[in-house]
Amino acid sequence: MPVASPVAATPQQLSSVKYNSEGLVPAIVQEKSTGQVLMMAWMNQDTLLETLQSGRTVFWSRSRKERWRKGDSSGDRQWVRAAYYDCDGDTVLLVVEQEGAGACHTGNHSCFYRRFGAEGPAGPPGRAGSAPAAE
Amino acid sequence: MPVASPVAATPQQLSSVKYNSEGLVPAIVQEKSTGQVLMMAWMNQDTLLETLQSGRTVFWSRSRKERWRKGDSSGDRQWVRAAYYDCDGDTVLLVVEQEGAGACHTGNHSCFYRRFGAEGPAGPPGRAGSAPAAE
Repeated sequence: MPVASPVAATPQQLSSVKYNSEGLVPAIVQEKSTGQVLMMAWMNQDTLLETLQSGRTVFWSRSRKERWRKGDSSGDRQWVRAAYYDCDGDTVLLVVEQEGAGACHTGNHSCFYRRFGAEGPAGPPGRAGSAPAAE
Repeated sequence: MPVASPVAATPQQLSSVKYNSEGLVPAIVQEKSTGQVLMMAWMNQDTLLETLQSGRTVFWSRSRKERWRKGDSSGDRQWVRAAYYDCDGDTVLLVVEQEGAGACHTGNHSCFYRRFGAEGPAGPPGRAGSAPAAE
């Protein structure tokens, strides 16, 4: 079983994150081993802090208006291996080890499994050298 | 000079994209050659369509309330090589060839150049095998 690696963010780093009018920040999740962008979801201040301190991704559901921890129902947990914030502080990036089948509730490994313009299903974008088969 | 590769999205694909109450969708930009997540910005229906049809990333500035095409002032253009939308249709992913110094107005290659918890500057996350030096 993967081991949690808590991230010791400093108060200064945490205060650099800017939340929108709903108190949320978009969080991009990227797979460490492949470079694939797996999903994007939202965090509030509490769930970002919990994500960093616990080493697992925890989000805020805008539709259900509740905290949800990735993998609690599916088993497809995400273990944080590095966390970044962008130049404006209004987006965060979590680099994770993805457990189980993948990140998407559809059963796909990445939520970005549909490609504009390509006929038929195309694999999600991976790192250099592992471009989708349809390409 | 890089060549534009327009993406022929179908009406069905375009209608799968869901815009928020402001008419915007978050657009993640990933570098094709490295797998690095370069930036996140917002598109409206017009700039998403322009991005796909022209093969260059075009965004909507929420602060300036205007269209902006990446690289028009900096020269750091982004050439679209593949475009995806996620399971919910509420986020898009552009895989690009980044021209010039990089994606960030700070001069960094990626906007995600600041890492939570790590002392000192850390490189942006790359593909597997090219983790930040601080790791």
